[in-house]
Amino acid sequence: MQNGLDDSLLFPSRLLEELDWSQCSAQFKPAISATAPGDNLILRPLQASDYDTGFLQILGQLTSVGDVSREMFQSRFDSMKACKDTYYILVLEDICTSQVIGAASLIVEQKFIHSAAMRGRVEDVVVSKDYRGKQLGKLLVQTLTLLAKHVGCYKVTLECSDDNIKFYNNFGYEKSAENYMVARFKD
Amino acid sequence: MQNGLDDSLLFPSRLLEELDWSQCSAQFKPAISATAPGDNLILRPLQASDYDTGFLQILGQLTSVGDVSREMFQSRFDSMKACKDTYYILVLEDICTSQVIGAASLIVEQKFIHSAAMRGRVEDVVVSKDYRGKQLGKLLVQTLTLLAKHVGCYKVTLECSDDNIKFYNNFGYEKSAENYMVARFKD
Repeated sequence: MQNGLDDSLLFPSRLLEELDWSQCSAQFKPAISATAPGDNLILRPLQASDYDTGFLQILGQLTSVGDVSREMFQSRFDSMKACKDTYYILVLEDICTSQVIGAASLIVEQKFIHSAAMRGRVEDVVVSKDYRGKQLGKLLVQTLTLLAKHVGCYKVTLECSDDNIKFYNNFGYEKSAENYMVARFKD
Repeated sequence: MQNGLDDSLLFPSRLLEELDWSQCSAQFKPAISATAPGDNLILRPLQASDYDTGFLQILGQLTSVGDVSREMFQSRFDSMKACKDTYYILVLEDICTSQVIGAASLIVEQKFIHSAAMRGRVEDVVVSKDYRGKQLGKLLVQTLTLLAKHVGCYKVTLECSDDNIKFYNNFGYEKSAENYMVARFKD
């Protein structure tokens, strides 16, 4: 497992160790947490070497990933990392196979409003079909929600389908009266 | 007016000159544009000196701004600017008074999905009460929407109340079937 100072990590893994799991609002039965996600699993920051561990293939279970070369991956990883305190991409790894089996992103936006506050956004939550029913989606969202609070966000938001509203209620998310509006330039 | 190389600007002002206004989907009567926003008005990137030109006071017409000292403002400005190709905050200035009378933000998020794409988010659109009825809100949103496309976003999104859905339809935004969910840690 990587230590908190490993330069190849997208963000310091000590942030995951520092989370106050007693503030966890979802129920986990059996109990799992960011630092103990289940047998043979670790939850850790994305790292540059995840080009070879199935991270993009897992995202492909969520949406179209398209062609991302090793160079594009490294370049995107580097530019995310260069945006300080902004990109927090979590991956779940099965240590038996050394493959990524789940992922989720927190993106932090800096504001001038609310005393120069920060707000978080949860994006691209996915767990491999083969690993569902192990509370791992719940673990990813709970971890990112606590992480958003830990890094100083005043709120964290996401978009979800009607079917998933109850799931996200578990972590303190409520449906807003505001509408989510999208303009697309490409599919 | 600042030139495109002025280091005190949050982003290069040439980006506004490069917008293809023929792709504008909203109707402006009389015709105004990013480079010709109306008599005695200029549309430009936020700059560090806007601490003294009423930018925060304009945001205060939108929501709570709280206490933001000059040092906090400069620090937030610098950290936004250090996140390359991410923060595009527009301001409208009345050149007669040298005061900011409107503002709007585009935030660009880097992704791995969709061939390492980028997506935009429009946030914090506000026009001073004294300058409404001059198509300036429309100008801000149209400009940021064209800018999102120009800088390479595959889509741009925002959240709005029911009352504003029709307004945003003008620029190609459609209400998504997805719900906007919010978890708050502070008011």
